[in-house]
Amino acid sequence: MSDIFTINSTSGKARSGIIKTPHGNVKTPVFMPVATKGTIKTIPSWDFKSLKIEMIISNAFHLYFRPGLEIIKKFGGLHKFINFEGSIFTDSGGFQMSNEDFYFGVRENGIIFRDPVSGEKILFTPELSAKIQNEIGSDIAMALDYVLPYGKSKRRMEEAIKLTYNWAKLFKENRYGISFGIVQGGTFKDLRERSANEITSIDFEGYAIGGLSMGEPKEVMMDILEYTIELLPKEKPRYFMGLGSPLDIIKGVMLGIDIFDSVFPTRNARHGLALTWNGPVNLRKNYLKDNFNKLDENCECKTCKFYNISYIHHLFKENEILGLYLLTIHNINFMMDLMEKIREGVEKNTINELYEKLEEAYGKNGDKK
Amino acid sequence: MSDIFTINSTSGKARSGIIKTPHGNVKTPVFMPVATKGTIKTIPSWDFKSLKIEMIISNAFHLYFRPGLEIIKKFGGLHKFINFEGSIFTDSGGFQMSNEDFYFGVRENGIIFRDPVSGEKILFTPELSAKIQNEIGSDIAMALDYVLPYGKSKRRMEEAIKLTYNWAKLFKENRYGISFGIVQGGTFKDLRERSANEITSIDFEGYAIGGLSMGEPKEVMMDILEYTIELLPKEKPRYFMGLGSPLDIIKGVMLGIDIFDSVFPTRNARHGLALTWNGPVNLRKNYLKDNFNKLDENCECKTCKFYNISYIHHLFKENEILGLYLLTIHNINFMMDLMEKIREGVEKNTINELYEKLEEAYGKNGDKK
Repeated sequence: MSDIFTINSTSGKARSGIIKTPHGNVKTPVFMPVATKGTIKTIPSWDFKSLKIEMIISNAFHLYFRPGLEIIKKFGGLHKFINFEGSIFTDSGGFQMSNEDFYFGVRENGIIFRDPVSGEKILFTPELSAKIQNEIGSDIAMALDYVLPYGKSKRRMEEAIKLTYNWAKLFKENRYGISFGIVQGGTFKDLRERSANEITSIDFEGYAIGGLSMGEPKEVMMDILEYTIELLPKEKPRYFMGLGSPLDIIKGVMLGIDIFDSVFPTRNARHGLALTWNGPVNLRKNYLKDNFNKLDENCECKTCKFYNISYIHHLFKENEILGLYLLTIHNINFMMDLMEKIREGVEKNTINELYEKLEEAYGKNGDKK
Repeated sequence: MSDIFTINSTSGKARSGIIKTPHGNVKTPVFMPVATKGTIKTIPSWDFKSLKIEMIISNAFHLYFRPGLEIIKKFGGLHKFINFEGSIFTDSGGFQMSNEDFYFGVRENGIIFRDPVSGEKILFTPELSAKIQNEIGSDIAMALDYVLPYGKSKRRMEEAIKLTYNWAKLFKENRYGISFGIVQGGTFKDLRERSANEITSIDFEGYAIGGLSMGEPKEVMMDILEYTIELLPKEKPRYFMGLGSPLDIIKGVMLGIDIFDSVFPTRNARHGLALTWNGPVNLRKNYLKDNFNKLDENCECKTCKFYNISYIHHLFKENEILGLYLLTIHNINFMMDLMEKIREGVEKNTINELYEKLEEAYGKNGDKK
């Protein structure tokens, strides 16, 4: 039983449903655009509605440093600060252990981060992470976890899942509102199992699979993902952190994942790569200079309504900032459209056909460029 | 008599009226946002309507190199290419003599430019400049002029106005549609007079004062401006190229200028400077971090409707691209609002009060930061 999650349809292991947050109902499977510092890069929140964005993910850790907790609190919370009345997921800070600018060291009771701007060092505890996410008004908070990069020893990974468990308990005690626990364990199946047992023993509203998509080979990632999903309760929402290419997402859905987030569509947009139903299009390529078609002929986004490929190509060749905004609009719209088709695929049992279509467009490994 | 320009009101030397172009009526005095390469930097053309932009200025020279004449022609002209159905002014290329990336040398019959991308050299003649502006569908084309930086000898300036005159005649013969001639002469009053007599002897639809705002002291600029305006026919529109701070614009209007363009509002926006009715605001300043007011309390722009100072400050501190777009929206809206108030000031004879208000907000020299 889940208080926040209802599954309406299934197709194989895939599920579609609704997550209920204090700011509304979110249709799943859902892709959350990333707004690390309180902005989906290049996109004002006045565009969120037409892009059908129901939920974004921001980063409580980054916001804690800048603009700072006091400012967001004074302003009445993150929703007001960024002017978005939909649902906001927040990440906890654990992932920033992999950020050399911030990471300093780890202790039994938390992570030591160093603010690269002020030089100040702080001990980032699960209690503090919960407090921040409480006070900025996060709809769904992520527990503070211990994140190790791919390739570390099993002994270190055991230490990581032990602290992840301890911190998860402390986090849950200090969090008011919905929160998700995070299963770690790297590519060690026995550690994944131990971590899953430990984390799911805490009554989180949902569970995330962390520590993947961290540099390990794709087959390994998919194998561990498939293995770990089976260890999570069926009735609660499952979140695969940081996975975002179209093909990876549909694979994740077909394995039973409900929630995704990634900088994939936004970062690629800024590099000139458009996502389309015929595969990726690199807007910097010279052969596009006199292509007067839309990026995607049936696309309903503002960019496609207003502009053709030739113009966007021109913007990228001239390094015009507008190009970044136009492609980001298009790529987020594509992802939202993709998720809608995926949900339809689950409901109508046609998700295999959708998968084949995406594989044709994006290549067997989803990495066609 | 003018076929394209009607003066409806005057107040001292200031005038307000209408310029008629193939793409509509434009209220004057008008400020044209600069879209050198076919984009007002950061702003999609879907925002132009709500910003009340009636006319922009683009640069035929830059567009000739990239995307190239053939592409714009194939697409059906510049209006379609950039998706804007308002009026488009285009500059000719003369000003790029001051651009070291492009300028190579000058000949009797034109300017030698070197494309910094391809390395290709071309002789840019008045005939070619007219052809480009004809073929991309410019509503108002600028004649090709010979632009010298401030501080060159009188002998060189004499050569410049001689060629400017020769080129203006050739330009007019080859231009189909509205075109403006450009008076040069630097800071030499006798050369300004000679150039004005020569250029106004050609029946252009309007006249521009070029070669100012090129590094000369402000008092010198204003003195030469005032002197030169008197040499232009009253019944035709007058354009001061490249002037754009709020105080300079109202001064220009009070001397009888009708048309302005400048990167002032857009470039300053990208540097974090907001234009407001209380003067400029530098969004990077730390004291703004917990300022929860709007940039300008009565501002109707989307940025002010959606966001407060604290959020925009945060974006600039974090180098988030969205900040550039938000401030550009605000600054262009401010300029459009300013021009509306200026036109009202001319019509109601209250332009002196408006001038005083702007002087208080922007400082005696208009350069308060």
